Amino acid sequence: MRIGRFQVDGQSRIGVFEDETVRDVTYKFESFRDALLRPRDAEHAEGKYFDISEITYLPPTTRQNTVFCAALNYEAHAEESDSAVPERPLIFMKLARTLVGHQEPISYHTRVTQEIDYEAELAAVIGERARHVSSEEALEYVAGYTIINDTSARDLQLELEVGEDNLLDWFSGKTMQRTTPVGPSIVVDEINDPQNLSIESRVNGETMQDDNTGMMIRTVADLVAFVSSRVELKPGDIIATGTPEGVGAFQDIQLHNDDTVEVEIEDIGRLVNTVEEVNE
Amino acid sequence: MRIGRFQVDGQSRIGVFEDETVRDVTYKFESFRDALLRPRDAEHAEGKYFDISEITYLPPTTRQNTVFCAALNYEAHAEESDSAVPERPLIFMKLARTLVGHQEPISYHTRVTQEIDYEAELAAVIGERARHVSSEEALEYVAGYTIINDTSARDLQLELEVGEDNLLDWFSGKTMQRTTPVGPSIVVDEINDPQNLSIESRVNGETMQDDNTGMMIRTVADLVAFVSSRVELKPGDIIATGTPEGVGAFQDIQLHNDDTVEVEIEDIGRLVNTVEEVNE
Repeated sequence: MRIGRFQVDGQSRIGVFEDETVRDVTYKFESFRDALLRPRDAEHAEGKYFDISEITYLPPTTRQNTVFCAALNYEAHAEESDSAVPERPLIFMKLARTLVGHQEPISYHTRVTQEIDYEAELAAVIGERARHVSSEEALEYVAGYTIINDTSARDLQLELEVGEDNLLDWFSGKTMQRTTPVGPSIVVDEINDPQNLSIESRVNGETMQDDNTGMMIRTVADLVAFVSSRVELKPGDIIATGTPEGVGAFQDIQLHNDDTVEVEIEDIGRLVNTVEEVNE
Repeated sequence: MRIGRFQVDGQSRIGVFEDETVRDVTYKFESFRDALLRPRDAEHAEGKYFDISEITYLPPTTRQNTVFCAALNYEAHAEESDSAVPERPLIFMKLARTLVGHQEPISYHTRVTQEIDYEAELAAVIGERARHVSSEEALEYVAGYTIINDTSARDLQLELEVGEDNLLDWFSGKTMQRTTPVGPSIVVDEINDPQNLSIESRVNGETMQDDNTGMMIRTVADLVAFVSSRVELKPGDIIATGTPEGVGAFQDIQLHNDDTVEVEIEDIGRLVNTVEEVNE
């Protein structure tokens, strides 16, 4: 089953997504967080059907949630970044206001950055409060899986001069307004092994990343466990599990206005968005 | 006027704080964000009075908000950190789940850190949506001022080994559950010049930091403007403006169980919290 959020007539709805339609099951739940606590209750609920051409996709999370992103979690991506592997997970955060849904534009804020980049990533969506859970039990706290395109403003992320040093700037490089697609929806109960899914990104149809989630250094379960050792994870929080080799930055490829970026993950789907220059 | 949040009988309330009492004005507003949009409406509102000894203080923000913290924003603190000044503001984030109110314990998570530290900081609370505002107009978007003790797990923050390099780990070092006091409440309309306030921290009564907000490198207005160039600021978001010289880390001082930390800022008040070891 695929559950997610969408908008019609300016209103946010909760839906079960099926091929070309979405069934509105908003009335069954107090909130989207409630739906993540008991997604099974959506499965056979009655509801009005919309054609997916009529709706706007929303990111399958809420304003109270945060995306916890793992950096350098594929060996070959660490290598292309000319970096070693961190001794423990290196986590940065994206805010709800940074996210957009499937088919929404990726904002290219030309007033402050001149270099934006894609990153295909498997994302786990938390379904239950989790604090200090072990890797062994961590996947029990995951409601399902979705896709994130963890875009970056590379000129800002990779070089913040502090005297003679350069620091990484996770805030400016990763957190900008409406830059990061998530979705289309959350796949519940269908992924038996999150560490064996093909993952690809394409820019204007050309394959840029092509790997398998089995190549992660820390597994989804390890990352959920690690983040839960710092903060309490809440339903709707997202763990982004890092990107494979093939990002633009290290091949001198940048995204431009009107470029279309697709991220496809086996058994989950395809997240498609187009870059839109905005003068901000 | 001082407006904030508190709890009685397990319920969250909005209050106007006056010396030894708080007046419950919850009914006047849809939410605390609404109160920040029009705090004047609280000023003469009727309401039940509670003695402050009867209440639990809550952080004056909401679960949808984020704290945007400036690092290295006082020259002498950059020097004691053996760091230059960043070419542009270096911002990291704290989540609502990281915060506690005045008089609540600072959690010392001994399972994952063995070195926690205080940081006295002036905090500006946003009162209106702000995006790409200039430094000149930025203070018009500030509802008022409060105090933050931007505690750190220094052992985690300052050293994340990545091969032969050490990276700063803002997530593990700054974001842990219930570690960061904010409050007691927000001072509205009484601070004419946020860049001329004495700021002090004391541990068990001994002065550790003693400076003036006039020594900031980037002003409150500059920081609000900068953060608004990355994301849209929302009512209830907090800008923490960096800490002066005198933190524990560079004098080999750590906080211990039962230590009391006070942060006092002129015309705002005193934020007092005690360290509590928790086995998590």
